[in-house]
Amino acid sequence: MKAFEKPIRIGMVGGGPGAGIATAHRAGMRLDGRYALVAGAFSRDAEKSRAAARELGVNESRVYASYEDMAAAEAARDDGIEAVAVVTPNASHYGVSKAFLEHGIHVICDKPITDDLEDALALHELAEKKGLVFVLTHNYSAHAMVREAAVRVRRGDLGEVRMVQGEFASGWAAGQVEKDTDNKQAAWRTDPVQAGEASVIYDLGTHIHHLARYVSGLSLEALAADVSTVVPGRRVYDNANVMLRFAGGARGAFWITMAATGAEHGLSLRVIGSKASLTWCHEDPHHLTIAWPDGRRETILQGGAAQSDAAAALTRIGLGHPEGFLESFANIYSDAATAIAACRDGVRPERGPLDYPNTADGVLGLQFVEAVRKSAAADGQWMDIETITTLGC
Amino acid sequence: MKAFEKPIRIGMVGGGPGAGIATAHRAGMRLDGRYALVAGAFSRDAEKSRAAARELGVNESRVYASYEDMAAAEAARDDGIEAVAVVTPNASHYGVSKAFLEHGIHVICDKPITDDLEDALALHELAEKKGLVFVLTHNYSAHAMVREAAVRVRRGDLGEVRMVQGEFASGWAAGQVEKDTDNKQAAWRTDPVQAGEASVIYDLGTHIHHLARYVSGLSLEALAADVSTVVPGRRVYDNANVMLRFAGGARGAFWITMAATGAEHGLSLRVIGSKASLTWCHEDPHHLTIAWPDGRRETILQGGAAQSDAAAALTRIGLGHPEGFLESFANIYSDAATAIAACRDGVRPERGPLDYPNTADGVLGLQFVEAVRKSAAADGQWMDIETITTLGC
Amino acid sequence: MKAFEKPIRIGMVGGGPGAGIATAHRAGMRLDGRYALVAGAFSRDAEKSRAAARELGVNESRVYASYEDMAAAEAARDDGIEAVAVVTPNASHYGVSKAFLEHGIHVICDKPITDDLEDALALHELAEKKGLVFVLTHNYSAHAMVREAAVRVRRGDLGEVRMVQGEFASGWAAGQVEKDTDNKQAAWRTDPVQAGEASVIYDLGTHIHHLARYVSGLSLEALAADVSTVVPGRRVYDNANVMLRFAGGARGAFWITMAATGAEHGLSLRVIGSKASLTWCHEDPHHLTIAWPDGRRETILQGGAAQSDAAAALTRIGLGHPEGFLESFANIYSDAATAIAACRDGVRPERGPLDYPNTADGVLGLQFVEAVRKSAAADGQWMDIETITTLGC
Amino acid sequence: MKAFEKPIRIGMVGGGPGAGIATAHRAGMRLDGRYALVAGAFSRDAEKSRAAARELGVNESRVYASYEDMAAAEAARDDGIEAVAVVTPNASHYGVSKAFLEHGIHVICDKPITDDLEDALALHELAEKKGLVFVLTHNYSAHAMVREAAVRVRRGDLGEVRMVQGEFASGWAAGQVEKDTDNKQAAWRTDPVQAGEASVIYDLGTHIHHLARYVSGLSLEALAADVSTVVPGRRVYDNANVMLRFAGGARGAFWITMAATGAEHGLSLRVIGSKASLTWCHEDPHHLTIAWPDGRRETILQGGAAQSDAAAALTRIGLGHPEGFLESFANIYSDAATAIAACRDGVRPERGPLDYPNTADGVLGLQFVEAVRKSAAADGQWMDIETITTLGC
Repeated sequence: MKAFEKPIRIGMVGGGPGAGIATAHRAGMRLDGRYALVAGAFSRDAEKSRAAARELGVNESRVYASYEDMAAAEAARDDGIEAVAVVTPNASHYGVSKAFLEHGIHVICDKPITDDLEDALALHELAEKKGLVFVLTHNYSAHAMVREAAVRVRRGDLGEVRMVQGEFASGWAAGQVEKDTDNKQAAWRTDPVQAGEASVIYDLGTHIHHLARYVSGLSLEALAADVSTVVPGRRVYDNANVMLRFAGGARGAFWITMAATGAEHGLSLRVIGSKASLTWCHEDPHHLTIAWPDGRRETILQGGAAQSDAAAALTRIGLGHPEGFLESFANIYSDAATAIAACRDGVRPERGPLDYPNTADGVLGLQFVEAVRKSAAADGQWMDIETITTLGC
Repeated sequence: MKAFEKPIRIGMVGGGPGAGIATAHRAGMRLDGRYALVAGAFSRDAEKSRAAARELGVNESRVYASYEDMAAAEAARDDGIEAVAVVTPNASHYGVSKAFLEHGIHVICDKPITDDLEDALALHELAEKKGLVFVLTHNYSAHAMVREAAVRVRRGDLGEVRMVQGEFASGWAAGQVEKDTDNKQAAWRTDPVQAGEASVIYDLGTHIHHLARYVSGLSLEALAADVSTVVPGRRVYDNANVMLRFAGGARGAFWITMAATGAEHGLSLRVIGSKASLTWCHEDPHHLTIAWPDGRRETILQGGAAQSDAAAALTRIGLGHPEGFLESFANIYSDAATAIAACRDGVRPERGPLDYPNTADGVLGLQFVEAVRKSAAADGQWMDIETITTLGC
Repeated sequence: MKAFEKPIRIGMVGGGPGAGIATAHRAGMRLDGRYALVAGAFSRDAEKSRAAARELGVNESRVYASYEDMAAAEAARDDGIEAVAVVTPNASHYGVSKAFLEHGIHVICDKPITDDLEDALALHELAEKKGLVFVLTHNYSAHAMVREAAVRVRRGDLGEVRMVQGEFASGWAAGQVEKDTDNKQAAWRTDPVQAGEASVIYDLGTHIHHLARYVSGLSLEALAADVSTVVPGRRVYDNANVMLRFAGGARGAFWITMAATGAEHGLSLRVIGSKASLTWCHEDPHHLTIAWPDGRRETILQGGAAQSDAAAALTRIGLGHPEGFLESFANIYSDAATAIAACRDGVRPERGPLDYPNTADGVLGLQFVEAVRKSAAADGQWMDIETITTLGC
Repeated sequence: MKAFEKPIRIGMVGGGPGAGIATAHRAGMRLDGRYALVAGAFSRDAEKSRAAARELGVNESRVYASYEDMAAAEAARDDGIEAVAVVTPNASHYGVSKAFLEHGIHVICDKPITDDLEDALALHELAEKKGLVFVLTHNYSAHAMVREAAVRVRRGDLGEVRMVQGEFASGWAAGQVEKDTDNKQAAWRTDPVQAGEASVIYDLGTHIHHLARYVSGLSLEALAADVSTVVPGRRVYDNANVMLRFAGGARGAFWITMAATGAEHGLSLRVIGSKASLTWCHEDPHHLTIAWPDGRRETILQGGAAQSDAAAALTRIGLGHPEGFLESFANIYSDAATAIAACRDGVRPERGPLDYPNTADGVLGLQFVEAVRKSAAADGQWMDIETITTLGC
């Protein structure tokens, strides 16, 4: 039982009818019983927003026409929200997050942090200055077996990391371009104005970039990219190959696409070390595979005694009870709840290296997007990634 | 968004500190936002019960010393609970469930329904007479891909069903018998007084029995069993092989054990038909495999367009976003919420053949346990299972 | 390089046009270069026999009209065959094998050894008396990873063996009964006169029975069986479930069928021990999986350093170079060649417990068939298997 | 039965004690009984060569001190060899192959064809001029399920090919550099003089390059590469990432390494089309997976009715009888035997697009190596691959 006496009062911006990722955020809030959703600006359309509120059990008096109103009004209440979940399209993440931070409200924001590197840096500084919790939902890093992988790399099980090969090769946009507008999600993600020409790099690229950093513990130093549009007529890039050079000499590659016809989810990571290698695949998230040079391939089962304490902390039931996508959101929300609850007592929470992703991760993600864009534009030239040293890794 | 305007007010009996399956029940309540947990008798120890209430956000005024008090008091309130979740050890399921049914409160009860066939029949009759919803949490039948399997069998994709091979071969109790008392769960499940000598048949056997019936759509007519204790010194049976004859001529077998060293969960089902066969494994719950005679083995991915509407209704996010154990509980709780909400309007809910398990399933499960016991006691003689025709299948 | 200066001169009885398993026997002879096929009675039809000889490079002067002629004539030659491969239908195994043994010629015989227990015992005694090598091609026991499994059980890696669960659930005869006569193989295996009513028990049952004994090292003491015909109109049994009790107390079950629609091969074995469990599946023969109680599932890869010397001896190339069905035959033929070559020097070869299967295995296999038949006929009564102690295990 | 009346008389250059790939070549010759190994120059050491001959059953009179002597002497005999298998280190492939071609003897040569592009072109022209069969043993293209993949791409099942992602990430050289000299194979492959600095590109890169072309049917137009040495102290490259652009617009990437710690074999290919995608993995060679956009993932089982005639022709036993690495060599040798046998009758064999690899494939492979080297030397600049149009693809 992880629940606390007083659930964290939270609001949501975005997540009205037809919303996608909001489902995961709401499940993340609910699963462990540590949040109460009490306010929202669910849609720009007032009627849709109220409809959502009714379904979600949010009192109509705390449904707002705009996020600005919501931030101001909630900040003024004694029982106002302590945190906000931002689940709008990328382009508005900056404005929304900034408004709530300025009113002293913690932020849990969907990725990518913004669609612009400068904005991301500004949010980073603002959150730091305010001493507020800012959680970026790169949820895959909150799977128990991903955390297990990160623990094992850091304690040296794999020896020196030599290669990092990642892919996020989804098939959701592999169809005809005419289908791009079939639903709300597809429509904005394939619109160069809303999603940017680099769409898939923001959407899927920042995930695999974060996951690779999170597990390997390495900083990316340089990359060379080939970006393309493989579905005829599409107006944004939908495929990228990226070659990678990490600090310390490790090499690697990413394959990032939303057009891998028939793919299930397509997210996987391999880290090759001098002593052993590991593989994690999102299609089978409760397992982690370690390959040893003597011809033993060992699968670590979530919930077994062989897993680390860090992974055990993310396991609700135990061995043989698969936890999946929604549980990874719940894990991030639970980490966030612990941090936010600590702030209640005026304690600035210490964030460990394997804790929830934050603004620093967001900034590094946007650096990655920028570097891919520049390299592709320069016909695959290697691009150095200027490490923002004050952010750490 | 499956949420409704007014969440169902629910209470819980059992589920105090150290409880196991209560975690799944609470997640099942929370995930879709359709329940509010507002009352409980979480433990026979009053202080432990209050502690649980604090963590769960239940008001102290609605924490009860006994389930009898709780049933009476809640039934008397205008805002009393509409339903109760029963998560105590098997032996008390009958008494608790009866008390709430008699006070007009719907019941969601962990399996097996009782530890005695007569009691099970009595609950069945009581629920029918009262017109109340009684949900038995054979949760595996609420996995999207299990429902998909059941749909495909019924629409004839497999042709005539010829064999049904199932197993629930868990390894949780494969260790030394001294470990049987290590934790609360293990202690009662390996105590012949609390769990019965047939322990594993109640605990795991009723699950695979229900799953086999649910997917195949067949009634079990007769069985022959070999029951054993493979961990030296243990006082209950921990292993069983059972041969099966189904109505219509299909044959099959179950392997049921809690001593399969190193097993992850160990639940799987295969149904062999004249046209095709299917396999579902709990370790990989979001996939269903169909084998065709021409050497094609087809995996149906949860969330894809190839799945039926019935499976789509149990899918929260979509293709590539694995849903697991807790989601299966949430699916049952969501089915239950729909039925309970219908009763609010005085409508007696119609239950379709693939809906949540109920008292009839509970009775059939106990018939199975009895038949296994009798056959094993008679050195493996075939035992007919007297079909309770009024229950249907 | 396993080849020797002088390949073993071998003949073949059966294996004419349309033959099935003869292909595997011939590949087994050829792969390691230790045999020269120099004589044969490939078919009862003289012209077909000569046609086969031409394709196989056998000189016409050594093609015989009958196996009796062949045995006599080859025994009389200075350069006569040293061994014969018997690949005729089951019913003739006894007569053919007896003829060659009596002429002092070693025998490599396809399984089952005969279709009659008394005949099998007679062959056993004859081979013993003559001091000749008799190899029964239960080829699965010659897969490197099956031998690895047997080694690991014997050296105690699994602790005490508690359960043995096996299945050979093939789908080759899952179609309509009209297809039973489609080809030569199907025709005799579904004809009660040629294959016996217990067809599938002879054909697939003896394989899983041998494999279970080979890996577990346990003697089968008693069984209870349910035998059925699941394809309407078929005249032989095509499906069986068998419950097993082994010496020392281990329990188990077999599922044996030729009607598992869509199955690939369907042969697999699990051995559950007090310390660990193992699984081997024929669809993935170069891997062996060990499950440990702490939630680690370890796959041993053929050719890696972790495999035993016994498995390494059956590995031709090394890690990552899959060896399959034909290689398992070549392994048995290579074991046989070593034994036969030893006899050249007048040395009676010592046969280790993990070496090629022989007449004793054949006799035990037929005991298993008889016990299944008797139990099924007695409505599933437990049948003791009279251990033929002089045979060992 | 694929055997012919008169086996093809073949000799071997290389393949003495300690040899690696010669084992596969010899198995390839033997498995289907279509070759007789009758001559050889197995080692530069005369005694070792004679020892090998004794083990292989080659008459001492046809063991030669040099390949030059062998080519001349065998060409002069009435019963001289019709073909030679060349299994020496890369650097001598050119000289050996040339000698035999000039004497009118067909060549079956291990890959890569040579270590120099000009030499490869010279062999190509010589073989064409002489009208001789030259088979390059890119054996993976002779797996039944790889041929199935190629057939399905060509008949349009996948629609337009959009991406081609391949990897050959082996772990054989992942250890400490001191182990590089542990055995004969490792010693020459990590010696820059014998293997070239680009070692892994010749050894593994040419395989994945051929496999990608073979299955996709596409010509590689340009590439950009990052080449590195990840094992400290090693004197050759052991890791490469390569980005790919194919004729017609498809994109892709290769990961090529011999230092993927713990890898089993590491060869796999994915081809993404507009209608469906396919995956083939060498660890599971008898299966081919097709992913469809509607969430069905279909595995084609070797030997089933769903496979094409082309795959059926490479299947010896049938469904459920795994064929592996040695069988792929046997398939190439069998294709070669058909072509060589045709030449006996003075017919120049027509080679279909999916037949055995030849000198043209060898030339294209070396172009690939050259392009990788040049791109890596130019810091990853894109390199055009000048298509040798007369070679076709």
